[in-house]
Amino acid sequence: MKLLRFGPIGSEKPGLLDAAGNIRDLSGVIPDIDGSTVTPESLARLRALDPASLPRVEGTARLGACVARPGKFVCIGLNYADHAAETGAAIPDEPIVFMKATSALSGPNDPILKPRGSTKLDWEVELAFVVGSDCRYVDEAEAAAAIAGYFVCNDVSERAFQLQSSQWDKGKGCDSFGPIGPWLVTPDEIGDIGNLHMWLEVNGKRFQNGSTSTMIFRPAFILSYLSRFMSLQPGDIVTTGTPPGVGLGQNPNVWLNSGDRVSLGIAGLGEQHQQVVDA
Amino acid sequence: MKLLRFGPIGSEKPGLLDAAGNIRDLSGVIPDIDGSTVTPESLARLRALDPASLPRVEGTARLGACVARPGKFVCIGLNYADHAAETGAAIPDEPIVFMKATSALSGPNDPILKPRGSTKLDWEVELAFVVGSDCRYVDEAEAAAAIAGYFVCNDVSERAFQLQSSQWDKGKGCDSFGPIGPWLVTPDEIGDIGNLHMWLEVNGKRFQNGSTSTMIFRPAFILSYLSRFMSLQPGDIVTTGTPPGVGLGQNPNVWLNSGDRVSLGIAGLGEQHQQVVDA
Repeated sequence: MKLLRFGPIGSEKPGLLDAAGNIRDLSGVIPDIDGSTVTPESLARLRALDPASLPRVEGTARLGACVARPGKFVCIGLNYADHAAETGAAIPDEPIVFMKATSALSGPNDPILKPRGSTKLDWEVELAFVVGSDCRYVDEAEAAAAIAGYFVCNDVSERAFQLQSSQWDKGKGCDSFGPIGPWLVTPDEIGDIGNLHMWLEVNGKRFQNGSTSTMIFRPAFILSYLSRFMSLQPGDIVTTGTPPGVGLGQNPNVWLNSGDRVSLGIAGLGEQHQQVVDA
Repeated sequence: MKLLRFGPIGSEKPGLLDAAGNIRDLSGVIPDIDGSTVTPESLARLRALDPASLPRVEGTARLGACVARPGKFVCIGLNYADHAAETGAAIPDEPIVFMKATSALSGPNDPILKPRGSTKLDWEVELAFVVGSDCRYVDEAEAAAAIAGYFVCNDVSERAFQLQSSQWDKGKGCDSFGPIGPWLVTPDEIGDIGNLHMWLEVNGKRFQNGSTSTMIFRPAFILSYLSRFMSLQPGDIVTTGTPPGVGLGQNPNVWLNSGDRVSLGIAGLGEQHQQVVDA
């Protein structure tokens, strides 16, 4: 099942992508795609629907962030061995946990807002997931069962902000720095989550060309690990790190500027297309 | 005006503390104390009420976190020169920004849950505030006007978790690590926010005994600064750092254990009383 949110910013409706690629309007069934509707019970109810019975959305709708109002937006850093190497960092012994502001969420094709004073705007294609069940001290099997769906995330980063102090959050949570989607894909529709091709291009040039097969810590392990340090609730989002090829890893560095076009995708999870504009 | 939330965990009602110290039930007027009701318009409406016209809550009610469902819970680190010194850190040039998980919020007198595996559980009395208006690239005067209220926060920290990697968030966001309250105090009821006595005791021994007069970055500056890196929405919480006297700063270090009792307060903003229990 592929779930999405469509419509103008702030008034998105929930939708479902049918097998033919049409958006079907779910607003008569559930109020939104959020913590209240990504639970196992809610997903089972949606799965039982006949998509053909739902209104088809005509024309091209804007897509919103595929999950609304998460309680938190947790990130894992340096989770690909090659990416750790390109940034000059050691391979971590345990997942490195930081957070994006939930206000950074945006639609998969919305503009990336270059913050005022930004000089080192960078990209990161990532595999993200949404939590569907309460998690507190869960083991890896319980964690795997608690993942409601996966999606693409561009963990947009401003390196000067990120590295100004020791704490990264300031350069990770600017508005528009968290495009997620185009859609949430339930685990049953994904083959091996540990072997998905992922890529990112800037102005048509491919910079990131990796695979989830080189992740150090896998999603279920990450969720189990996180649940030792904070409880997680349905709707919480976790993004799991980026493979090599970010702007910070280029020699010389490459930074995003107004007008640049970023495209990214993960096999089976769809694509995002963003243009950089001044905030 | 002093606003609070009272009742069992998960079903708190909004309340107002009257001049005689009684809780008055606001649930007939507003649904909760949250982003929708800390706006200037909502506070003006509450201010126009006659507290005596509201039902008085009899008996002793549990107090909940004085603000519900913040979109984010932003923290400022090392914001007192003496505290920076006691932790061995340099005085920062700019506010150090990190985040607590919103799931860490708890009532002012709820137990502190010592996480499994915790060996270095610590305390931090802090002045926190809630945002009442949208803030994006606001100057300091606009930021001052956007602060809806102040309250006490214990920025409970697990130092082993916090310092295991370079990123602090993992040791800051455990469940129960964010007691706020007892009440939100609107700025008009506070004299000089830059001159409030603040203190914290463990088992009756005073460890922190400071004043907001030694803060490096003041609340309005902090909010203006943050708004350059993320937009802030009504209901967002910001906590502004702690004065000297944390457990990490003792020689030898002092850590909290099950059964310990923590009391803390800030002049004019009330007190918190917590007992440490195993998670």
